[in-house]
Amino acid sequence: MDSLKFLLVILDGVGDRPIPDYGGKTPLEAAFTPHLDALARDGSCGLVDVVEPGMPVGSDIAHLLLFGYDYNRDYPGRGPLEALGIGLAMGQDDIAFRGNFANIDQNMIIIDRRAGRNIPEAKEYIKVINDAIKSLDLGVDVTFKHSTEQRVACLIHGPSLSPRVSSTNPNKNFVPVEECRPLDGSGEARATASIINAITRKIYEVLKDHPLNKSRKERGVPQVNCILFHGPGVMKKIVSLHLKHGIKVAGVTGNGVIRGLCRYLGIDVIPCPGATGTINTNLDAKMDAVEEGLKDHDLVFLHIKATDSSGHDKKPEQKKLFLEDIDRIVGGRILRDIDHSCTTVVITGDHSTPCVVGDHSGDPVPFLMHGPAVIADDVEQFGERACASGYFARFSSRPLMNIILNKLDKLKKFGA
Amino acid sequence: MDSLKFLLVILDGVGDRPIPDYGGKTPLEAAFTPHLDALARDGSCGLVDVVEPGMPVGSDIAHLLLFGYDYNRDYPGRGPLEALGIGLAMGQDDIAFRGNFANIDQNMIIIDRRAGRNIPEAKEYIKVINDAIKSLDLGVDVTFKHSTEQRVACLIHGPSLSPRVSSTNPNKNFVPVEECRPLDGSGEARATASIINAITRKIYEVLKDHPLNKSRKERGVPQVNCILFHGPGVMKKIVSLHLKHGIKVAGVTGNGVIRGLCRYLGIDVIPCPGATGTINTNLDAKMDAVEEGLKDHDLVFLHIKATDSSGHDKKPEQKKLFLEDIDRIVGGRILRDIDHSCTTVVITGDHSTPCVVGDHSGDPVPFLMHGPAVIADDVEQFGERACASGYFARFSSRPLMNIILNKLDKLKKFGA
Repeated sequence: MDSLKFLLVILDGVGDRPIPDYGGKTPLEAAFTPHLDALARDGSCGLVDVVEPGMPVGSDIAHLLLFGYDYNRDYPGRGPLEALGIGLAMGQDDIAFRGNFANIDQNMIIIDRRAGRNIPEAKEYIKVINDAIKSLDLGVDVTFKHSTEQRVACLIHGPSLSPRVSSTNPNKNFVPVEECRPLDGSGEARATASIINAITRKIYEVLKDHPLNKSRKERGVPQVNCILFHGPGVMKKIVSLHLKHGIKVAGVTGNGVIRGLCRYLGIDVIPCPGATGTINTNLDAKMDAVEEGLKDHDLVFLHIKATDSSGHDKKPEQKKLFLEDIDRIVGGRILRDIDHSCTTVVITGDHSTPCVVGDHSGDPVPFLMHGPAVIADDVEQFGERACASGYFARFSSRPLMNIILNKLDKLKKFGA
Repeated sequence: MDSLKFLLVILDGVGDRPIPDYGGKTPLEAAFTPHLDALARDGSCGLVDVVEPGMPVGSDIAHLLLFGYDYNRDYPGRGPLEALGIGLAMGQDDIAFRGNFANIDQNMIIIDRRAGRNIPEAKEYIKVINDAIKSLDLGVDVTFKHSTEQRVACLIHGPSLSPRVSSTNPNKNFVPVEECRPLDGSGEARATASIINAITRKIYEVLKDHPLNKSRKERGVPQVNCILFHGPGVMKKIVSLHLKHGIKVAGVTGNGVIRGLCRYLGIDVIPCPGATGTINTNLDAKMDAVEEGLKDHDLVFLHIKATDSSGHDKKPEQKKLFLEDIDRIVGGRILRDIDHSCTTVVITGDHSTPCVVGDHSGDPVPFLMHGPAVIADDVEQFGERACASGYFARFSSRPLMNIILNKLDKLKKFGA
């Protein structure tokens, strides 16, 4: 037998609520998932509350908790994770923001807070913006970089900065861009807020009549003339998973923030160009990367994003069909290609994103564990309802890393 | 009806993982246990995490937690528990170590860290050692006493001692005996470490050519010329179970550390010469002692050790057969002889010791409760899989004492 291995599959936002069109079944329950069901049948199941029952949570924080870290002590903010995820090197005192390309009118009213999401000219816009910011006399270095779709990261390097400032993104259309405000009385917070406000004005000024936007206008797609800022943060000193537990961990993801989180936790990100974080992601390429990772890592983490996006977009049928793709490719290859004599597999989610809500909810997520040291229960289907009667019953995700380390026989016993 | 009684049966290390030879059943599931199954059928079941899901735990700490005590505040260390268990009276500032007889070579390399486990001359060796230590000018009183097999306790009485010193037992063969080192910068820790190192050298000097060893050599069994020290500790002031909850508690065990824990918690240890802590223990004698104890105690705790040893020794068949003995004698007599109109019985474990691992693991343990105030669920078998779907679902052991006190109607309500 080879050494013990673990595969942790997180289906982002997989949990859902009853869909009337499916006779009250959730998208996962309505989906045809013979492979996932076979894994459930031979494994043990449960329902997981990632924070606590009823509490909705963001994907970044959910993953931080799933890997056994403490939110208050260890969460650096969305900005630093996005920056790390797209390869921006952050120094000790740098502040990172996450940003969204947006379309605003001359009164700073938001027309489309994502500028249509599809922005092929993103890199050109970034260049224009980076050049324009240099002409401002801000006393700090500012770098923008594109992530995916409308998403960008912004890194500010300089003395006397603070992440204690407010977001400029009201998260809805037809309201004004919010002013960035200091969240405490420090000079650092005031300085940082006024830098963000100056940048916001400069971006509108340089883009409002830019040829890139003329071209988009002609094509009838929203112009890009604003960046909305949120998620400011600085890096925190944390202990990597490797140092903490003596295990080598690899990650496969198409999502910038989750890739950033991997780098933050010392998880080796396995390159996978086909991984896009959308429903068109190349799941076969991701499973290739997983199998590559399992060769020389104890734990491989596979993250799949578009279950969540389908929930946000209120598209149950898209979520159901994507879950059937996941079943066929990921479930099928786990059943066929993974060495079950030494590999334990967990498939679960980071939170629920019910299609009827269009956002994260506090409903628990289904959980299945399959492997050589797993006691099979009577659950015969991977779904919200069926998993509730499994061996794990309903449990908090807090001890998940210990559950993983236990199956890897990597925990020292507490006491003698 | 007589007054309410409670019997708590702890099968040490009972939880296990699937055994391929048993078609994926655990030893408990594969064992023929009609009496335990009958108790499960009429009772309510669950799965218990003694610390938290996934976390392996030692038996001493597990029992301390099961009885509702706090590890950080109340755990005195393995040494004091072993010392108490074999009747060494510990004073306020005494330090106790647990020790193992071992066989080492002239370079202090460990040949057998248990000196063959079977040491009929143990008491004679102890006498030689105690006399030899007296000749050292250590400024403290040192007393060794034999426990079971290779196990001894060592009590050091004197001023300015500290338990903050390292173990000398590397827990494997063919490596040197470790030096005892102070774990902090105090003079007390330095003094205690050098006492242990002096004792270690003296024991080798006096035993290396001793006639007792010549005789063992001739019989081809490992010589005894070393004691490996671990688990140093001092007594802590704790509130006994009786003072804490107003209940009288009795214990029946053949294991030194658990007997020590009983004395530490104010549990009356009922003498039971047939209780050996091995698979040859006299289970009938232990049940006699249990019935004796139930006459004048509210709660009787029955501890059975060899389920754990079978897991450590990776012997599933031995574990299974021993569980069938337990079923026949303990299960049979509980069904037949206990007054079920007033007695609640819990049968569970302190941790899992899977035969495929050979050590404690963080897997949960099966739990059954049977008695007049118990709501029967649909579970029909006492086993890891079956218990998962019971009334108790999966739960932490932390509130176990309250669950017991509740069935004894001994808890005052919280609030008005």
